[in-house]
Amino acid sequence: MGFYVHKYGGTSMGSVERIKNVAKRVAKWVRAGHQIVVVPSAMSGETNRLLGLAKEISANPDPRELDMIASTGEQVSVGLLAIALQAEGIQAVSYAGWQVPIITDSAYTKARIQSIDDDKVRNDLNAGKVVVITGFQGVDNNGNISTLGRGGSDTSAVAVAAALKADECLIYTDVDGVYTTDPRIVPEARKLGVISFEEMIEMASLGSKVLQIRSVEFAGKYRMPTRVLSSLTDPLMPLEQEMPSGTLITFEEDEHMEAAVISGIAFSRDEAKITIMGVPDKPGIAYQILGPVADANIDVDVIIQNQSVNGLTDFSFTVSRGEYSKAMEVINSVVKPGIHAREIIGDTKVCKVSAVGIGMRSHVGIAAQMFRTLSEEGINIQMISTSEIKISVVIEDKYMELAVRALHKAFGLEAAPVA
Amino acid sequence: MGFYVHKYGGTSMGSVERIKNVAKRVAKWVRAGHQIVVVPSAMSGETNRLLGLAKEISANPDPRELDMIASTGEQVSVGLLAIALQAEGIQAVSYAGWQVPIITDSAYTKARIQSIDDDKVRNDLNAGKVVVITGFQGVDNNGNISTLGRGGSDTSAVAVAAALKADECLIYTDVDGVYTTDPRIVPEARKLGVISFEEMIEMASLGSKVLQIRSVEFAGKYRMPTRVLSSLTDPLMPLEQEMPSGTLITFEEDEHMEAAVISGIAFSRDEAKITIMGVPDKPGIAYQILGPVADANIDVDVIIQNQSVNGLTDFSFTVSRGEYSKAMEVINSVVKPGIHAREIIGDTKVCKVSAVGIGMRSHVGIAAQMFRTLSEEGINIQMISTSEIKISVVIEDKYMELAVRALHKAFGLEAAPVA
Repeated sequence: MGFYVHKYGGTSMGSVERIKNVAKRVAKWVRAGHQIVVVPSAMSGETNRLLGLAKEISANPDPRELDMIASTGEQVSVGLLAIALQAEGIQAVSYAGWQVPIITDSAYTKARIQSIDDDKVRNDLNAGKVVVITGFQGVDNNGNISTLGRGGSDTSAVAVAAALKADECLIYTDVDGVYTTDPRIVPEARKLGVISFEEMIEMASLGSKVLQIRSVEFAGKYRMPTRVLSSLTDPLMPLEQEMPSGTLITFEEDEHMEAAVISGIAFSRDEAKITIMGVPDKPGIAYQILGPVADANIDVDVIIQNQSVNGLTDFSFTVSRGEYSKAMEVINSVVKPGIHAREIIGDTKVCKVSAVGIGMRSHVGIAAQMFRTLSEEGINIQMISTSEIKISVVIEDKYMELAVRALHKAFGLEAAPVA
Repeated sequence: MGFYVHKYGGTSMGSVERIKNVAKRVAKWVRAGHQIVVVPSAMSGETNRLLGLAKEISANPDPRELDMIASTGEQVSVGLLAIALQAEGIQAVSYAGWQVPIITDSAYTKARIQSIDDDKVRNDLNAGKVVVITGFQGVDNNGNISTLGRGGSDTSAVAVAAALKADECLIYTDVDGVYTTDPRIVPEARKLGVISFEEMIEMASLGSKVLQIRSVEFAGKYRMPTRVLSSLTDPLMPLEQEMPSGTLITFEEDEHMEAAVISGIAFSRDEAKITIMGVPDKPGIAYQILGPVADANIDVDVIIQNQSVNGLTDFSFTVSRGEYSKAMEVINSVVKPGIHAREIIGDTKVCKVSAVGIGMRSHVGIAAQMFRTLSEEGINIQMISTSEIKISVVIEDKYMELAVRALHKAFGLEAAPVA
């Protein structure tokens, strides 16, 4: 008998029929003798509908109230799924995040999980029940509802799996695993059977939409084996076929890893660049610029500071497009008055493309090959950022697909590597 | 400075524009120096949509899970209204029932309020905030979400007003007060300026949809002055005009009451009749029949037992149509095996029409006049039930409008009474 946490995304929960299919699939696992906790997302479109209502009322709605509103989508899902499980003859009970409770900080709309109380859930599991817990949300220490931000249900699922010490966390989604890149852009893209935690972090953070980045961080922190697999298969397919399907995120490099230098090409169009030109190149200037941006709870990604000329330098950074206006506002209202800058330039027509691979650590020349490939396609590189296992470039966004296809081919990702 | 609880129904909260209008109205009260708690319903149609999803999954969904689902409608409303108030420049904070908390029993889908903690709300009011609290719901002692049943937001509003000792509870709705009967059926129906608590109880319980019965009971128990008024007026209409509008439910008969014998004609089509024919007329038979029905949490309304013939009697009672199938199931599966009955007959084509009035107490002949009027119209009376201040008849439902019009005329309700 195993203990598994299942997570189902908005598409899998998108209609009454699909919810019934999720119930059939979960029931199959229960009948095979496993204990199951299910973490569903809101029905697809629901979170957008709810946030849309709030945005119609106010351009800048209170984040606490947004969470009050947005959290209801998952609450509907857990209730419906519990009813569907009961209709399958399976005992089930649903909980909202605050009922477990899943305690978070108070950073509304992008809260972080601090602790999960496992008493109630464990009692229910031991009583033979499936426990259905809302994804995406928790409650802060003052009893206010908080949400984890987009894709937060993945994080909820992995966090619950870690807190309850599940054998594996299964993320059911509308793709059947993690690919070398998006098959819609590169038809030859190949599904990976396993991927290392570090590579998955880079793939997720770089915009491969399969898994939310924080969920992978949680999986890494607690070494929770996490599998991405399809919810579109027949819910009654044999368990021995379903259990090993999809892509497993692993923590044991040597055993399972493919021998590839590069595992995949990730990309993200959700990028905007802000450049502050002609600022004095003196100690503390980076903090003076980015401190207020961080205080406004805006994530900054790639950061570049040019070589200074005559004591002046140009400073560039990227943020997600959704936070671009807010970031520009902070820069203009808070940062600008305190520094001397020649000009502030914003650009929302950029994207980021990255080559990711653990094998990169021990191979030289990967960066050179990447830059040559882009150069041969006539693509200008605006920013470069590197880490141990990835190289990212910021380029004009109209070249994104071209860059992804060229790099996928240049690194031979369409063929399985030879060990 | 006064302290008022406002309640807004689903129609008043039915769109972003209407929610903004509610915010404008509340802001007007706040700017006039009053402290305000608002209890909104779910956006119109939302509760039905949510329950419809559950019913699509299971014909007999778990009530606890239904409450989990249905309670989200109001949670969305409070968040949106708080945002709309903030956009008006008014400080506001929203709470779900469990956050206040509003403690109820565990009779899911028809829970009763047991207590309301006023600490948090009072602190917010004293800090100058409008507090927006979900109607329709609370939380039981085990932390499960409960709902109060249809129209429960009225009850929430009056209960919150009572717990916080508000000066008045204002129920804003899509009618402008309580009428002698439904103007859609009798165009001559007249709006009442005041109505006694007892009459309002009868009007509400008899299907005048203006106020939920339990809210009137709460108002009576705590002597909370409660006003029914229109939410369709200009939200910026002068406060001195708005404050005395609508119909006030009063507890001081002599001062304010009109001198009418009959105040109104109430009616309800939501009736179904169950008759158990040929049961032995022995002590305990009524309990044997109705005990299991009550245990199944089904409200029974009119009850009649005929004179027995040869030791056998016929026993009839009415329930709401929504509980008819459940009641029949209880009768057939639990009651029938334990008694000897010739036949069990169900009839969902009945309705109830009632004449209500405190003046009835001191006037004879009201019942006779009612029966004569119905007889003149050729309407057969199936059941009769009387109380101190009302006479109800159960009749075939196709005669409902005819009966209401005839009785409204017979009692001269179109003209204001002379004191």
